[in-house]
Amino acid sequence: MPEPTINENPHKRLNLLTGEFVLVSPHRSKRPWQGQVEETSADQRPEYDPNCYLCPGNQRADGTLNPDYKDSFVFVNDFSALLPDTQSTFIDEDGLLIAETERGICRVIAFSPRHDLTLPEMEVQDIKKVVDLWHQEFVELRRNDWIKYIQIFENKGAIMGCSNPHPHGQIWAQSSLPVEIIKEDIQLRAYFEEHQRSVLADYIDLEERKDERLIIANEHFVALVPYWASWPFETMIVSRRHVQDISQFTDQEKEDLAKTIKELTVRYDNIFNTSFPYSAGMHQAPVNSEDQKHWHWHMHFYPPLLRSASVKKFMVGYEMLANPQRDITAERAAEIIKEQSTTHYKAQ
Amino acid sequence: MPEPTINENPHKRLNLLTGEFVLVSPHRSKRPWQGQVEETSADQRPEYDPNCYLCPGNQRADGTLNPDYKDSFVFVNDFSALLPDTQSTFIDEDGLLIAETERGICRVIAFSPRHDLTLPEMEVQDIKKVVDLWHQEFVELRRNDWIKYIQIFENKGAIMGCSNPHPHGQIWAQSSLPVEIIKEDIQLRAYFEEHQRSVLADYIDLEERKDERLIIANEHFVALVPYWASWPFETMIVSRRHVQDISQFTDQEKEDLAKTIKELTVRYDNIFNTSFPYSAGMHQAPVNSEDQKHWHWHMHFYPPLLRSASVKKFMVGYEMLANPQRDITAERAAEIIKEQSTTHYKAQ
Ligand SMILES: O=P(O)(O)O[C@H]1O[C@H](CO)[C@@H](O)[C@H](O)[C@H]1O
Ligand SMILES: O=P(O)(O)O[C@H]1O[C@H](CO)[C@@H](O)[C@H](O)[C@H]1O
Repeated sequence: MPEPTINENPHKRLNLLTGEFVLVSPHRSKRPWQGQVEETSADQRPEYDPNCYLCPGNQRADGTLNPDYKDSFVFVNDFSALLPDTQSTFIDEDGLLIAETERGICRVIAFSPRHDLTLPEMEVQDIKKVVDLWHQEFVELRRNDWIKYIQIFENKGAIMGCSNPHPHGQIWAQSSLPVEIIKEDIQLRAYFEEHQRSVLADYIDLEERKDERLIIANEHFVALVPYWASWPFETMIVSRRHVQDISQFTDQEKEDLAKTIKELTVRYDNIFNTSFPYSAGMHQAPVNSEDQKHWHWHMHFYPPLLRSASVKKFMVGYEMLANPQRDITAERAAEIIKEQSTTHYKAQ
Repeated sequence: MPEPTINENPHKRLNLLTGEFVLVSPHRSKRPWQGQVEETSADQRPEYDPNCYLCPGNQRADGTLNPDYKDSFVFVNDFSALLPDTQSTFIDEDGLLIAETERGICRVIAFSPRHDLTLPEMEVQDIKKVVDLWHQEFVELRRNDWIKYIQIFENKGAIMGCSNPHPHGQIWAQSSLPVEIIKEDIQLRAYFEEHQRSVLADYIDLEERKDERLIIANEHFVALVPYWASWPFETMIVSRRHVQDISQFTDQEKEDLAKTIKELTVRYDNIFNTSFPYSAGMHQAPVNSEDQKHWHWHMHFYPPLLRSASVKKFMVGYEMLANPQRDITAERAAEIIKEQSTTHYKAQ
């Protein structure tokens, strides 16, 4: 372990992807907790739930019936936040009220017909089918030339606002770049212009050499706790190949991605012997846009739990008004994730 | 109501203070909810709790006894995230691992000896004493020439990570500028340099003329739902006078601020007949720094509730990875807050 002094004292670390700092308070992890404790769900679900609007054959909010699907299943969100047919208009009142309509398409992906199987509990070959569907959806959505960005993500667990326990993810595709993508675009581009290299390629090389935050390193992917992680057990999967988006992955890479997701999420579930909640999603190059070579495919996992299955990290007052803050260091979090078995606790 | 088309369609609005957009999906507020429901506390607390480390005379984590205080009471946080004596050091490994120690002072303010009284339940004259203490602490903390920013804030309610139900706030003072302050600094400065006016002064003038998002307008302060609010019932208090920080307020202004906080938080509690949770805090000019004329004192309120005392807005997957998103419009939220009585529901 180099840098012993800084890692034991309050410090801030630069997020290479956003250009923003995170505040780290390593000495603070012994703080007692008298605050909110989450309900932990028994996590015993039936394979099929007649009241679930995602299970095969059931009725959805708009009255249509789901097909009797066998693998994963995709449909347009019945309560889409973005709509494809919004007419373009904008407002600028004295430079003070500035607004613009936004067009988009929101889709939902049920990961499998099984109401009870989260990603870590699925077989690698079934996760591979989800990866294939992500790929297919990405390619199909970008055929709309007005779509500029496609966000593929999952909210896992009620604590992460997941509105239906049937394992599923979402895709929101839209006509302009979201704020987090604008930030990453600026950072990735600046490094690429200076070094003619992807910053994430150089970063994962360094992380492999140091081996302090690395969790998984297989042929095509690396999973690690980023040096600048904000959430206690935040991780990132990065492709070894410097590609811009999922459409460039070979079949072998997609298989490896399925394996990486499986291993990472099994380790997550094993930390507290619970279905580990998170929001996760890929960051990829904007679509239908020139000059995106600086982008490098990666996937973020933002899990909220801190001390146990029922005590989470609150990103509240100071964090909302001033700066993200964490207590346990990224290195300690990586150690804990690495100590976990790669066999799911329910199967042990 | 002008701009009818844009306000009924998915659109994004520019946050003048951060330069970032928020996505608004007005058509989506009818979405059904099968997700997480929060526990609502009975909110019956004793005036004094022998196990509370904030009540007068009780023992704190570090063993010291609280004085038998009569008004508000301030002390150094026993689990401070920032420490004053951290030695300055930094890391830059290949431009990829970048970190720097941070010095600071964290304090806690018990708002009153009463374990059961939140700000909306306190008398204006007692809230005024809290404002006076904020003022006094601000002036005292900035005497340390190494302190560059002072964040005064409150996490209210267990859902906002408040770790002790005895009503209290916090102050984190630190040696560099937090990320949200850096963003506001850039935006406020740019407008001031172009117009020789505070953007917030021009903005509240416009909001008073339009009267669509205004909640309170008294002699010295305005409270409103900002055009770019992200949280469902987010509000902002802005001083009419273009001053940089709380130390410039007259006694009359501090009294008016106490009244404004009282009225706003009473209205909040009345929306769902519950102790309305939020994180709130002031944004003020950096201290011990030249050239801060562009700053204009204001206070943000970020409340998480959306549909009821137990269903909150989740800022999760899309919001964390891509862009903050809201369902009900700022205008509708302002209407709801304005409809509320200014007498607290417990006193009705
Ligand atoms: O200091 P407290 O009340 O123990 O802690 C609370 O506020 C802090 C500052 O916003 C956060 O870092 C913590 O996550 C939250 O639980
Ligand atoms: O679309 P869902 O699952 O109903 O809703 C969930 O994910 C959305 C996208 O992150 C959020 O806007 C919602 O707040 C959350 O509850």
